[in-house]
Amino acid sequence: MTPKEQNHGLFDRACIIGIGLIGSSLARALKRDGLARELVAIDQSETACAEAIDLGIVTATSQDISAAAGCDLIIVATPVGVMPGVLQALADVAHDGAIIMDVGSVKGSVADAAAKLPPNLHVVPAHPIAGTENSGPASGFAELFENRWCILTPLARQDDAYLGAVEKVETLWRSIGSDVARMDAAHHDLALAVTSHLPHLIAYTLVGAADDVESVNEAEVVKYSAGGFRDFTRIAASDPVMWRDVFLHNKDAVLEVLGRFSEELAVMQRAIRWGDAQALEKAFTRSRGLRKAIIDAGQESAEPNFGRDSKPTRSDTDQ
Amino acid sequence: MTPKEQNHGLFDRACIIGIGLIGSSLARALKRDGLARELVAIDQSETACAEAIDLGIVTATSQDISAAAGCDLIIVATPVGVMPGVLQALADVAHDGAIIMDVGSVKGSVADAAAKLPPNLHVVPAHPIAGTENSGPASGFAELFENRWCILTPLARQDDAYLGAVEKVETLWRSIGSDVARMDAAHHDLALAVTSHLPHLIAYTLVGAADDVESVNEAEVVKYSAGGFRDFTRIAASDPVMWRDVFLHNKDAVLEVLGRFSEELAVMQRAIRWGDAQALEKAFTRSRGLRKAIIDAGQESAEPNFGRDSKPTRSDTDQ
Repeated sequence: MTPKEQNHGLFDRACIIGIGLIGSSLARALKRDGLARELVAIDQSETACAEAIDLGIVTATSQDISAAAGCDLIIVATPVGVMPGVLQALADVAHDGAIIMDVGSVKGSVADAAAKLPPNLHVVPAHPIAGTENSGPASGFAELFENRWCILTPLARQDDAYLGAVEKVETLWRSIGSDVARMDAAHHDLALAVTSHLPHLIAYTLVGAADDVESVNEAEVVKYSAGGFRDFTRIAASDPVMWRDVFLHNKDAVLEVLGRFSEELAVMQRAIRWGDAQALEKAFTRSRGLRKAIIDAGQESAEPNFGRDSKPTRSDTDQ
Repeated sequence: MTPKEQNHGLFDRACIIGIGLIGSSLARALKRDGLARELVAIDQSETACAEAIDLGIVTATSQDISAAAGCDLIIVATPVGVMPGVLQALADVAHDGAIIMDVGSVKGSVADAAAKLPPNLHVVPAHPIAGTENSGPASGFAELFENRWCILTPLARQDDAYLGAVEKVETLWRSIGSDVARMDAAHHDLALAVTSHLPHLIAYTLVGAADDVESVNEAEVVKYSAGGFRDFTRIAASDPVMWRDVFLHNKDAVLEVLGRFSEELAVMQRAIRWGDAQALEKAFTRSRGLRKAIIDAGQESAEPNFGRDSKPTRSDTDQ
C-alpha cells in the first residue's frame, strides 16, 4: 500500500475558506490523493466560487462561512488580515472536535486569535513554504507542495485531542509531498521575515523604484531587464493584498531584519564610494556557497537562469 | 540565403581575450555561424586555454596578447578593471584597421581608455545584456545572445572607416540573434545601473546579510528559501571579480540609483511601522504591469516560478 492509499479518507468533509493559489492547490492535492470524501470551497467572491466548480476541484461551494458546519477539517486560506475574524466566526459554526488549519504566512497573529477559541476546536497553524507569483483558483496546482517545507506552529496545548489533531495535520502535509517542521510562532515569524518577507519587500521596492531615475525610461528598463532586474519582478508580481497583510501583521520581525539589511547595504555603499576592491570581492564571494546549499537541498533548480532561457527560441525567419 | 549564410566569413581572423562565460559563448556563436575563418582564445589562465581547446570552440589559444596580431576582430571579454591595460597593450600589437570590441558591463571607463588609442584602431564598445550566474569556458552557449539586447556605445568619431567598423559589429550581433541599440556611454552606465548593477548589489547584500540574524541559522535559510529568498541567490552567485570591477568603475551611477532605492526603502519602512495599509497595497500593486511588459517583450519567461518548478519531481518511492 503506498502512502497515498494509506491516508485515503483521512478526512470526511473538508472545506477551504479562500480558494486562491494556496487554497485551490490544496483542493487539487486533497482531491488527487483522496484525502477528503467531500470538499467545499467557501469564498466571498462569487466568481472564485464559480471558477472552482468549473475547474472541478471541489464538490460544492458557498459564499457563507456557515457551510463550514459539519466539516472535520476547515482550512483557512485567506489573506492573514482577515484570519482573526474568520476564526471568531468559526467558533459559532464549527462542530465539536473540528480541526481548523490556517495556511497564513504570519503565525503570531493567528496564534493570538486561536487562543480565544473554545478548546473543543483544534486550531493547527500551518505555513507551506511554497507558492508562485500568480493568484486565483486557476493558478493552483496539486504539485505545489512537493519537496517543499511546511511549518506547523502548534498552540501551547498538551491535551491528547489536540496533539492528535496536530498529528493528523502533519500526516496531511506529508501525504501531499511536503517535509514538515514544527516550531513556535515567534521563531517562525522571524525565520520567514528573513527568507520570505524581507525578500518580497526588497523586490517590491526595487521594481517600484525603477521609474525613479528620470532619464531612464520604462522601455529601457524592459529591454535591458535581462541584466538582473527581471529576477526581482517575479516575486514583486505576487498578490498585493496578501503581502500588505503580511507586513501589517509581522511588523516587528520585518523591521528587525530590514534594519540589519540596511546596515549591510550602508557597508556596501561605503565600499563602493571608497573603491574598496577587497571588501567588495570578499562580500561577493560568500554567496555562491549558500546558493549551492539551496540547490543541494532540492529547493532550487541548478539550471543557469533558473532554466528559463534553456529552450533555444531563435528561428531564422524571425531575423 | 538566410542571414546566417549572408554573414559567413564576416571576419577573417578573430581573437577573444578572456574566454569566460561571455567570451566562450561568443566563440560558440561565431563558430556556429561561420562568422570568422579562424578563432583564437587569449587567456592568462593555462587551464582556461586548455578547456577552450578541449571544448572545440576555438582553433588556437595563447596566453600572450601578441597573438592578437593579424586579427581583424579583437574581442575583449575580460573583467572591466583590466580593460584599460588590455587596450593599451593592443595599441602595440593590433594591425592597422583592426576592430577592437569590448563586451564589458561598464562603458564610460572603456571609452576613456579607447580615446587614447591611435585612430587606425577602431574600438567599438559593446555590451550584450545577457548572461547567467555561471563562469568559465564550459559555462558558455551559442544561444546566450538570442532575443537579448546588445548596446553599442560608439566613440565620438565620424570617419568612414570607424563608422564602417561600427556597422560590422552591429551585423555581428544581429547575426547571432541580438537586437542592437546605440547610445552614449554615460547613458548606458546609468540605464544599466538601474537594470543590472543595482539589482546585483541588492541581491549580493540580501544573500550576504542572511546570516545576520543570530537566532535563524543557515539550515533554516536553506530549507525555507522557496519563500522568496532563493530568487536572489541566482544573481548573487555571479562572478565576484567581474562584479567587483563593475562597482569600482561605475561608482557614480550606482551610488546615484542606490540613493534613490534607499529613499524608497525608507518610505516602505515607515509605511510598515505606521501600519499604512493603503500605501503598502498601492506600492505592491504597481509592479505587476512592469513584469507583464517584460514578459511581453520576450525578456522573461511567463511560466510561474520561472518554470523551474514545473516538472513534477515527486515519486511515491521517495516518500
